[in-house]
Amino acid sequence: MTARFATYIADGTRYYGAVADKGMIDLSAHFPQWPSLLDAVADGGLATLARAADGEAVTHTDVTYDMVLPNARRILCVGVNFPDRNAEYKDGSAQPKHMSLFPRFASGFTGHDQPLIRPPESDQLDYEGEVAIVIGKAGRRIAQADAYDHIAALTICNEGTIRDWVRHAKFNVTQGKNWDKSGAMGPWIVPFTDTAQLDDARIVTRVNGEVRQDDTLSRMMFPIREEIAYISTFMTLQPGDIIVTGTPTGAGARFDPPRFLKPGDVVEVEVNTIGTLRNTVEDEA
Amino acid sequence: MTARFATYIADGTRYYGAVADKGMIDLSAHFPQWPSLLDAVADGGLATLARAADGEAVTHTDVTYDMVLPNARRILCVGVNFPDRNAEYKDGSAQPKHMSLFPRFASGFTGHDQPLIRPPESDQLDYEGEVAIVIGKAGRRIAQADAYDHIAALTICNEGTIRDWVRHAKFNVTQGKNWDKSGAMGPWIVPFTDTAQLDDARIVTRVNGEVRQDDTLSRMMFPIREEIAYISTFMTLQPGDIIVTGTPTGAGARFDPPRFLKPGDVVEVEVNTIGTLRNTVEDEA
Repeated sequence: MTARFATYIADGTRYYGAVADKGMIDLSAHFPQWPSLLDAVADGGLATLARAADGEAVTHTDVTYDMVLPNARRILCVGVNFPDRNAEYKDGSAQPKHMSLFPRFASGFTGHDQPLIRPPESDQLDYEGEVAIVIGKAGRRIAQADAYDHIAALTICNEGTIRDWVRHAKFNVTQGKNWDKSGAMGPWIVPFTDTAQLDDARIVTRVNGEVRQDDTLSRMMFPIREEIAYISTFMTLQPGDIIVTGTPTGAGARFDPPRFLKPGDVVEVEVNTIGTLRNTVEDEA
Repeated sequence: MTARFATYIADGTRYYGAVADKGMIDLSAHFPQWPSLLDAVADGGLATLARAADGEAVTHTDVTYDMVLPNARRILCVGVNFPDRNAEYKDGSAQPKHMSLFPRFASGFTGHDQPLIRPPESDQLDYEGEVAIVIGKAGRRIAQADAYDHIAALTICNEGTIRDWVRHAKFNVTQGKNWDKSGAMGPWIVPFTDTAQLDDARIVTRVNGEVRQDDTLSRMMFPIREEIAYISTFMTLQPGDIIVTGTPTGAGARFDPPRFLKPGDVVEVEVNTIGTLRNTVEDEA
């Protein structure tokens, strides 16, 4: 079994640890040099964490998953990255030459099994299932051939969006993409040890059990190697940076009529090489 | 004299302190509870810092200014926010109903008196003079009438841009706005104690002494009170968040032919109520 590491809350305290069949094995108590899971992954510590967890007993069984890397400083999302997604916009534009990129703050994401929050300002909360990569090695102008060497871990993102706010302004999707807890990231990170974890990855998004998105990373217009190369052209990638790599066609906004999320819905994003991120939906209290 | 606080490097070590006529008064050594200036401002500590600096002797005279809040976690910039700026785009579009917003990472900014970096990929490094506010009190859905209560401090931003990369992609300006050290923030923060510091503020940007931008904050299409109200609708503003409030007309891209920055240029952004942020321009080494 591949190691899986999560950030979680138990008895009101935040921990990180290894995910076991029947609960969590706390690791945060043993690694004060890494106050958070982000610090561990950024410091190349995942193999050390895996060894420390090996054979250990579960320490917490009653846990709440947190956003998997809640103190992530830089999260960059890639937009319009699967065939047919550009066509979905129906604006007659040619396939773009470069990828669209937008930052999201960590505050926009909740954890596994937690509710996505639909605010009173909109009834257009939408899902977007994606694979996210966590950078483990710094680099600038990284060659595509070397790009995978800079990835430490993988996770899953539901890049939840308040659709009508995406186009509020003349430019930029910022305000539709950064509502508090409108998306989710997790349940865990898995160390990236085999290129097949990305090259053979398939994203399936289900709402109340119905498949809405189903595509493979191999069909991306801008593959992950190119994302790393392109982004690192303008900014030095740093350990702990997260790239959310793009969502397949089939978000709720693309149906006619649109099928947005509503309270009580259950959204699952399954990535065969990582796991399943599951969230409910609630109206903001 | 209003207190001014800077982050600086001396003898290879990063400090923060009060800016005096002949150098810096180190404060970081006295406030271990605030490892950075960002921690102090976020914790409501500026008045305490001012008292601690009062009457103290200069501790460092040979200093290099750092980006004023180098560990800022969330920096949101407001685009197209002065009259004529929308017209500058010459796309025939009506004045937008909502403000355009885009995040920038702290890595995109250098400090006062340091060079803006022009990368080999582009000769279109451009300046944008702006006022930036630092949030001191958390809030969600902040009323415009209360907005100023949430501001702890002010600083100046040269929101330097690699112009041809702004429109690389179908949406979003991310890649033109996040080149390493393409912009600057500083020289210092000043505590926000009087509404006139914003209401009477005037931005003048000069390149090699020639005025390129000259406008007053009172002419903003989306005033700062509205920025705080709007942004806090979708995300809870937190102490330490920075809003870069918008640039007047007159960036280099708007001239015909465009007048981009080149190595050796000196750019100054003067805000009468804050100070003058000065930067040189260098090609990337």
